[in-house]
Amino acid sequence: MIKPVEQKLINSIRTLSADAIEKAKSGHPGTPLGAAPAVYTLFGRQMRHDPANPAWHNRDRFVLSAGHASMLLYSVNHLFGYGLTMEDLKQFRQWGSKTPGHPEYGHTPMVETTTGPLGQGIANAVGMAMAEKHLAAVFNRDGFPVVDHYTYCLMGDGCVMEGISAEASSLAGTLGLSKLIVFYDCNKISIEGDTDIALREDTAARYRAYGWQVLEVEDGNDVDAIDRAVEAAKADDKRPSLLLIHTKIGAFSPKEGSASSHGAPLGAEAVKALKQNLGVDPEKSFSVEQEVYDFAAACVEKGRLAHRVWDQLMEGYQEAYPELYSKYMEWFEGEAPDLSQDEDFFAFEKDDSTRNASGQCLARLAARYERLMGGSADLASSNMSYIKGRGDFSAETPEGANLHFGVREQAMAAICNGMQVHGGLHAYCATFLVFSDYLKHGIRLSALMKLPVLYVLTHDSIGVGEDGPTHQPIEQLAAVRSMPNAALFRPADSRETAAAYAAAIRRQGPSCLALSRQTLPLLPGSGKQAMKGGYVLVDSEKALPDVILLASGSEVSLCVQARELLKAKGVDARVVSMPCMELFEEQDEAYKQSVLPKAVRARLAVEAATSFGWHKYVGLDGDTICLDHFGASAPAGKLFEAFGFTAENVADKALALL
Amino acid sequence: MIKPVEQKLINSIRTLSADAIEKAKSGHPGTPLGAAPAVYTLFGRQMRHDPANPAWHNRDRFVLSAGHASMLLYSVNHLFGYGLTMEDLKQFRQWGSKTPGHPEYGHTPMVETTTGPLGQGIANAVGMAMAEKHLAAVFNRDGFPVVDHYTYCLMGDGCVMEGISAEASSLAGTLGLSKLIVFYDCNKISIEGDTDIALREDTAARYRAYGWQVLEVEDGNDVDAIDRAVEAAKADDKRPSLLLIHTKIGAFSPKEGSASSHGAPLGAEAVKALKQNLGVDPEKSFSVEQEVYDFAAACVEKGRLAHRVWDQLMEGYQEAYPELYSKYMEWFEGEAPDLSQDEDFFAFEKDDSTRNASGQCLARLAARYERLMGGSADLASSNMSYIKGRGDFSAETPEGANLHFGVREQAMAAICNGMQVHGGLHAYCATFLVFSDYLKHGIRLSALMKLPVLYVLTHDSIGVGEDGPTHQPIEQLAAVRSMPNAALFRPADSRETAAAYAAAIRRQGPSCLALSRQTLPLLPGSGKQAMKGGYVLVDSEKALPDVILLASGSEVSLCVQARELLKAKGVDARVVSMPCMELFEEQDEAYKQSVLPKAVRARLAVEAATSFGWHKYVGLDGDTICLDHFGASAPAGKLFEAFGFTAENVADKALALL
Repeated sequence: MIKPVEQKLINSIRTLSADAIEKAKSGHPGTPLGAAPAVYTLFGRQMRHDPANPAWHNRDRFVLSAGHASMLLYSVNHLFGYGLTMEDLKQFRQWGSKTPGHPEYGHTPMVETTTGPLGQGIANAVGMAMAEKHLAAVFNRDGFPVVDHYTYCLMGDGCVMEGISAEASSLAGTLGLSKLIVFYDCNKISIEGDTDIALREDTAARYRAYGWQVLEVEDGNDVDAIDRAVEAAKADDKRPSLLLIHTKIGAFSPKEGSASSHGAPLGAEAVKALKQNLGVDPEKSFSVEQEVYDFAAACVEKGRLAHRVWDQLMEGYQEAYPELYSKYMEWFEGEAPDLSQDEDFFAFEKDDSTRNASGQCLARLAARYERLMGGSADLASSNMSYIKGRGDFSAETPEGANLHFGVREQAMAAICNGMQVHGGLHAYCATFLVFSDYLKHGIRLSALMKLPVLYVLTHDSIGVGEDGPTHQPIEQLAAVRSMPNAALFRPADSRETAAAYAAAIRRQGPSCLALSRQTLPLLPGSGKQAMKGGYVLVDSEKALPDVILLASGSEVSLCVQARELLKAKGVDARVVSMPCMELFEEQDEAYKQSVLPKAVRARLAVEAATSFGWHKYVGLDGDTICLDHFGASAPAGKLFEAFGFTAENVADKALALL
Repeated sequence: MIKPVEQKLINSIRTLSADAIEKAKSGHPGTPLGAAPAVYTLFGRQMRHDPANPAWHNRDRFVLSAGHASMLLYSVNHLFGYGLTMEDLKQFRQWGSKTPGHPEYGHTPMVETTTGPLGQGIANAVGMAMAEKHLAAVFNRDGFPVVDHYTYCLMGDGCVMEGISAEASSLAGTLGLSKLIVFYDCNKISIEGDTDIALREDTAARYRAYGWQVLEVEDGNDVDAIDRAVEAAKADDKRPSLLLIHTKIGAFSPKEGSASSHGAPLGAEAVKALKQNLGVDPEKSFSVEQEVYDFAAACVEKGRLAHRVWDQLMEGYQEAYPELYSKYMEWFEGEAPDLSQDEDFFAFEKDDSTRNASGQCLARLAARYERLMGGSADLASSNMSYIKGRGDFSAETPEGANLHFGVREQAMAAICNGMQVHGGLHAYCATFLVFSDYLKHGIRLSALMKLPVLYVLTHDSIGVGEDGPTHQPIEQLAAVRSMPNAALFRPADSRETAAAYAAAIRRQGPSCLALSRQTLPLLPGSGKQAMKGGYVLVDSEKALPDVILLASGSEVSLCVQARELLKAKGVDARVVSMPCMELFEEQDEAYKQSVLPKAVRARLAVEAATSFGWHKYVGLDGDTICLDHFGASAPAGKLFEAFGFTAENVADKALALL
């Protein structure tokens, strides 16, 4: 039976949310009102969490996939003592506040992942549950379940409609993620009205088809029923569970059941009516009874104790398994290695495709950095992304470190984000560069959260050849380069590929590696200096060259050849390799000037992709040899020639600049 | 019972496919071998098609969602007389051929849509079936079923895993698209091996949950069973049908059942073995018995007759419903209207947000261009994309023209592509600009196919305000601008919004309209000239200005204000409004020079988005006021100020250039 104080706590979540949204004159009250009992059931009764230590490794995770309901999270944060003050709640959605419009990872305590773009959160939660399952398999020993927590998620009708949630949920079923428990806040209302206009499927049956346990709760206000359903979810050790909870959007307000309660303040009168309906003083705002705080504090005492028990468990673990303990601490707390002085990591002897070089780098990296974990969206053999000797992660073999995402690029990116924020792992994933279009919102969330997820993106140009324009990236490099916090590497050879990895794993933000299908020459002079993003690969004879040739990836060697042709004509060219514009921009002005002296205006950029973005380096007086149209289906060599990617054409265009 | 000649035809599909892939030394034989009987059943027995007139409006459509199986389509094309010659098949995947690696719309007869990126094709097919259902409701009259065809689609395990197919399929069930019949070529093999590693769901149950009829065919070689299943699919007039057909990848070759048959030629020996297994002379290549051609010709005779019957039906229709007939012909054959001289279309009186202006433009456009059809991914009231008085398209009201896509951005784009290639409609769709990330691969396919789909993308900057960085686009403008064939419009006021629409509907390629949430001033001097992409909004007093201020959208008025501040300091500035870089680039050199004279190097670009791409216009000597970082959650006005988007800052930065 629900206690009166529990009901008060639930109502406090509701009134704090409504008050903060009202004060901000902006926000989403509908879900906080409807889903407050479900979320209370988790934080108050079921979750093992320690608000004083929100970063406790073994806490249960909670993901608010319906990120617009941020006030739900902030109210819980405040009530359970995670640190948000009443003043913070009053600053909801204001400049510099701890309570932004959507939950932001790294900004507000207890926010496990940045949500808002629908469907991402549940896919993050799948990633967290995968991380938990793998780490448990790696670290747990008899009597020492050091990694042992649940991942909870709240999603709404919007998340349910997004394809990314379908991808992630199908994979979660396949992988038997039994410690993933997803609440579906089913209020049957979306912004355009009754979900009947766009969603008539039997979602429960769909999740059963994915191999999930589905538990239905008829009344979203029935805390005991929700509680029992969570128990049933926990009792299933084979399947993830979906709790389909029937709720009312904007519950207890005059806008209950109406789409108008979704994304706008209720209005002062409606907030008063809400409070009256809840039996709360309508004249008080931002008001919580002490009894509620006290009760919440008592609730979290269980979690504090669980944390203490875990600390003791870790002490015993350290004694019983000192090496494993060290490894655990390294995985969860250590930094990514500095490979810049690691000669073996950079050692390559022969011409090779950069996708092959990437495969070698991954293997070398995994040997030095065991917590690397990832896989491909069903293109491992093309992406060279499978790391031999590390097994396959599956329902039956969670200790394996190679992931099989299936043809699910979107979920792949979001799962990597989830694995990364979970802690203990460094995530990578792989597909063709052209399909980075499917990853884009996931990469963006890596960037927003500054997560160093590695995106291994092979088949980086018309070098794809016969598969044709649907498979040949043109604008994908620009799409990543233009994204804040993200870095796009397009290495010119194997050594530059190693430099890309060395830089990428230590960045704060995602790195996308654009890698060739075709063999590229190992270039004399290439190497670690590529970690500066751009550098002089072959210099001019004079201090100031007649012309600067800039390129990335497969076009760098063309420029080296063109430099010889130009030399024969008495023109002194410098070749600048630019594998990563973002890292180049981070260098100091003196270095940048030393590579690209402002006085030299004859500059030619060469890249088998859109010219968009290159004028930052070639200016109004320079030129580009790029592809501002789609590719074609033909052998790669034919395409490079037909589209002007020849040393002769580079030399001719360079001459035309003089 | 299958006739021997039918089996021969099926085997011809197989051997032609294997031979062409072998000759190309590249391609995907697995699916053509496994799915040949299913595809034969359609083209030979079930489909109403007239190869001599592949553009016949009322033909049954066939979409090869598994686009990598292109040789399946090309073989069928050749055998049924769509025009591909044996020489074309021999040129598979070669430069300039009619038979590229993946099927390309507009390039090869009978290719209904460009496929290759998995999951897109089935979503296109959903769009075609929606178009058919709507057009039937608009045009059909008792005794005159002038729009009345099926849409068939073949998808594989890859398409089944992609989230976009889930989105589209859920919507198809909701809309009761009973004339959509999808073949699921279920061979349980994907590139990384047995699909069991990533896909253990019960796909049949999942489709039943979507509200589909699911029919299972145990043996993919059993043409009669497939034929019966298609009949059962046709008999259901309430639900779309999924035919789950169990096939073997690489059937009858030595690589049958192996992932190795998916994406690489079988090898000469295996092709011989395949032919032996099929009872065909292993020494012959590209060989088809005359009997097979004759039989295929007899098959299509049915379709030719059906086409003739339809022509007669249309004659009767023209007589009985002359106005409706004219409308039909206009919708299917007419061009988009030229609005450039339509003063009413451009008439606006007051300051307004460009999203509101867009709403007015859509309504004005719909009045002038009835076949406009579209909707939003559950943001209609924010996107201003609902056109009043036109009803809602649903299972029960197919005559309605407002679509409710649900929160399914990916499928929305692909459905619009499908509606557009179907013919008879001009498609638009809407969401927030930041969620163009979810649309990106769909926009790319619009661009590849040169389809004039309109993407209405509101909330175009930090002007979003309180919803914060997850909802504030930064790099999305660059992502579209860098895409070939696509155009990005960011109008500065209501008149420029009208100009964007006027230009967009007549383009060959998609147009993305980035529209403000907030009110923008109606600018003196704005108007139709915006159709040139960039133009002088407020000129300098001298022929050559001291400084050029360039901007788009909400930042244009800042530049107009800054010009006044500069004037007070004796600096003569020109303000260039640049609503569409792509259209500006299409102008002749003289015009471009007249707007941006090369001699003027003091240039400042102002846009509340990434600076990436603007250096094409400001060069090495100019500057930008842009946002090369993510936004924040706060009221919009605060954000513009905090991030330097003030007239004062524009003036200061401009002065610094001098």
